[in-house]
Amino acid sequence: MSEAEIPRPAVILLSGGLDSMVSAALARERGHSLHALTIDYGQRHIRELQSARAIAEKLGVERHVELPLDLRQFGGSALTADIDVPKDGVAETIPVTYVPARNLVFLALTTAFAETSASRDIFIGVNALDYSGYPDCRPEFIASFAETARLGTKQGVEGDPFAIHAPLQNMTKADIARECHRLGLDPAWSWSCYDPTPDGLACGVCDSCRLRRKGFAEAELVDTTPYARDIDD
Amino acid sequence: MSEAEIPRPAVILLSGGLDSMVSAALARERGHSLHALTIDYGQRHIRELQSARAIAEKLGVERHVELPLDLRQFGGSALTADIDVPKDGVAETIPVTYVPARNLVFLALTTAFAETSASRDIFIGVNALDYSGYPDCRPEFIASFAETARLGTKQGVEGDPFAIHAPLQNMTKADIARECHRLGLDPAWSWSCYDPTPDGLACGVCDSCRLRRKGFAEAELVDTTPYARDIDD
Repeated sequence: MSEAEIPRPAVILLSGGLDSMVSAALARERGHSLHALTIDYGQRHIRELQSARAIAEKLGVERHVELPLDLRQFGGSALTADIDVPKDGVAETIPVTYVPARNLVFLALTTAFAETSASRDIFIGVNALDYSGYPDCRPEFIASFAETARLGTKQGVEGDPFAIHAPLQNMTKADIARECHRLGLDPAWSWSCYDPTPDGLACGVCDSCRLRRKGFAEAELVDTTPYARDIDD
Repeated sequence: MSEAEIPRPAVILLSGGLDSMVSAALARERGHSLHALTIDYGQRHIRELQSARAIAEKLGVERHVELPLDLRQFGGSALTADIDVPKDGVAETIPVTYVPARNLVFLALTTAFAETSASRDIFIGVNALDYSGYPDCRPEFIASFAETARLGTKQGVEGDPFAIHAPLQNMTKADIARECHRLGLDPAWSWSCYDPTPDGLACGVCDSCRLRRKGFAEAELVDTTPYARDIDD
């Protein structure tokens, strides 16, 4: 294999959710080998870590780091503290499932991982159309982060800055469902639900389930995930 | 006590080093109550965590979170991997003790902590005069980080952005030694050495020891820390 044919590694932030799965598969489609970072932050939906492992295996990830980081020590979110997850529909304001500075922390860790993986390319599955209104999913945040990472790393100051790719940035959930289908990914490999039932089903009615189900419905594609409740229950 | 008299909390990144101790004491002098974050990142000089605890106690810190985050899973630094710490003097280039994206990660975590502590004020002890050439100690990085944190947090987008204070930014180590003395702090509460001897002494000759000793010498102040070796050994 000539040097030109050796795949360049990309670092993938792999939560185990649908968006991170599609984002990782797009990185692979662009010819990258994959180094995946999954963060066990004490999330209520710890179930997504199983999905991250399954996706890493299905996509042939070269290196998968699962990093424990106990954000419950800070609390302040329905995903990391004893606060109920809303089930009544997606609101207009930033919901209580917002985890303080989560993507700032996760992108910073991904940058650290990339700098030790000889990788310039970082992929994150954020999108800001059909989403929960989290500020750290917006393109202006991602662009600003890239500049900060350039200024604050050896790799950046030595002239080889990181590129932060958010390939789903301008997609609707229906677009993402279509990409999932086009890329040959089984939606059930991934996990979106914030508040799984005691017997391990997706609840079907948290914001994350609602956005996902709406996307597949609009795309007229089957979501193979079994849900505990219908949206109209 | 009237509302105006309740001290506003500041979040302090407290490594246990001299700079973080002086930075924390300056925050207290400005009237803040202190919430301290110390990160146990698998550093070679784990000894600094003892100092962080001692400083927290001496300064009357209100809340002290010690967060484990195993950066050895990434490696890539003499502080987190099996790479020798240089002892021959401070070089012109970024040294192997650089930890990839460390201050980016630490400031992101401090922002998360601040957002859950109802704090707007973040203090970090970085300085870029007598330092090891780390890119993540430079003022342009700190300024860019503040903007990224504004864009990527609920607190930032709702109009109450974080202020990142780096009160030592333009100080020499001699200035910092003088501040340490003025504030009534015992230098030996803090720990700077990257590579303690097996019997727990500061080595005296790593970059961090050299910069610290030079600072106290220039300020003509006593550093109460016992060192294993003289600089001219």
